Amino acid sequence: MRETAIVQRIRALAEAGRHDPAIIRGIGDDCAIFRPRPNEDLVFTSDFVLEDRHFTLRTHTARDVGHGALARSLSDLAAMGSKPVFCLVSLAIPARLGASWVRGFYKGLLSLAAKYDVTLAGGDLAQFEKVIADVTCCGRVPRGKAILRSGAKPGDRIYMTGALGASARALALGRRADGPEPRIRAGIALRRLGVSAGMDLSDGLSLDLHRLCLESGVSAELESDLPIAPGASLKEALHGGEDYELLLTASPEKKLPPRIAGLPITQIGTITRGHAGQVYFKKRPLRAKGFDHFR
Amino acid sequence: MRETAIVQRIRALAEAGRHDPAIIRGIGDDCAIFRPRPNEDLVFTSDFVLEDRHFTLRTHTARDVGHGALARSLSDLAAMGSKPVFCLVSLAIPARLGASWVRGFYKGLLSLAAKYDVTLAGGDLAQFEKVIADVTCCGRVPRGKAILRSGAKPGDRIYMTGALGASARALALGRRADGPEPRIRAGIALRRLGVSAGMDLSDGLSLDLHRLCLESGVSAELESDLPIAPGASLKEALHGGEDYELLLTASPEKKLPPRIAGLPITQIGTITRGHAGQVYFKKRPLRAKGFDHFR
Repeated sequence: MRETAIVQRIRALAEAGRHDPAIIRGIGDDCAIFRPRPNEDLVFTSDFVLEDRHFTLRTHTARDVGHGALARSLSDLAAMGSKPVFCLVSLAIPARLGASWVRGFYKGLLSLAAKYDVTLAGGDLAQFEKVIADVTCCGRVPRGKAILRSGAKPGDRIYMTGALGASARALALGRRADGPEPRIRAGIALRRLGVSAGMDLSDGLSLDLHRLCLESGVSAELESDLPIAPGASLKEALHGGEDYELLLTASPEKKLPPRIAGLPITQIGTITRGHAGQVYFKKRPLRAKGFDHFR
Repeated sequence: MRETAIVQRIRALAEAGRHDPAIIRGIGDDCAIFRPRPNEDLVFTSDFVLEDRHFTLRTHTARDVGHGALARSLSDLAAMGSKPVFCLVSLAIPARLGASWVRGFYKGLLSLAAKYDVTLAGGDLAQFEKVIADVTCCGRVPRGKAILRSGAKPGDRIYMTGALGASARALALGRRADGPEPRIRAGIALRRLGVSAGMDLSDGLSLDLHRLCLESGVSAELESDLPIAPGASLKEALHGGEDYELLLTASPEKKLPPRIAGLPITQIGTITRGHAGQVYFKKRPLRAKGFDHFR
């Protein structure tokens, strides 16, 4: 199988999928071309998915890997309250996996892309000993309205979507966690409600809330009554990664509804004045023990 | 060294570098935020740089790898005649290389970024057995003015910047090729001159010209008198990759000057009517033998 032939197949799959009219040129040129609309900001994120780090070829099909690679990036777009527009996909695979694995990967990715109106606009293809994917996503948001990590203020309430610890539990049981579902609709709804800050929970609540507090220059007090996924331990809930729920703050005057876009919204704490980045749980300092790629 | 500490250092390096005012938010949030101007199109490209495929740790310093990773993506922006704006950098490295290697990589990358006014706006950082970098670049171009591969017409003259085969020659001698210099200024000047099509020469003239002809639905006739780098063979000139010069076509009425942005411009052939993608050299069909990642 030659590269040109594989790229032609990917291009055919991409062209059969979603095509945003703002993508003037997709796969097939040196660059993709995008035409912005007036009064919009664009948000961008890139995320790696690495074999034997984020998945294995024994436990994950090509489709799973394609789905997961896009889902991780879309989760970052959800955190900003943005609407996804397009993605660029860089994929390296061992030659032995061949064209059918590549096709499976793009089918998994494009099936999720179709759900959220994401156009596959370009990327790179290479051969390597292991599977590596790096997905860059672009989303749009009304000018000046993106949800930032840095907007939390003392007195704000801390909320999250869904429950904690499901991925860590699955991992502990040697099971594959379900492919994450990016919280796009919830993110857009929460942005419109006027939350003060937000991010996605990818590396564990303790580390991610620490990061949000660091960017906002505040402390946080977590409630003891957290929404924990069935079977998960408190430790898995506090420090387990890959939950891909949204973590948010809102001033006490904003009343968030109990459910948004089909997801339960739970108040899990309060932002306080104090040492930037410090998180307390049951009145004691909570160490940021979430997933660190270099520990 | 913890991930958070490494990211803080990268952020400090990035903030000491170029900062385009259109980047509303850079490193430190879930996404970078970019505010487009009216009447501009944005172009996007992603390119992998993989250890033991594009470089080795024995022959390339961390700075070389950082420079090369950005240069490959910038070369695609040059091919569209666009002005670079920002980049996202996904980097995976073995833990043993440590923070000093990461710093060297970003210093090499940011020194090239400074030269072409590129803002480092975000990315990803992970640990892996080998060094992997995937750089996504965004450039701007006046609306509808990007140079495409698909615009070549029968009768157009084929041109290129610089010379062919220098990288293939260096490789044959077991030397490291010089870090490529992206042809940004030449690309912008050629776009303003109204070339009909263009791309960058990354995988070898025979394969890249084949691709341009395929996208334009035309054939090409190469002249026997090609600009060949000192010491390089005709085979290296025709099929060697990584030259990162620009390949262009222009109607015969356009007179291109002999030099643009300090680079020699040479006419190397003519676009002809014929089987889409077919390239002739000395009246004989030329096989597209350039670099194929899956051969």
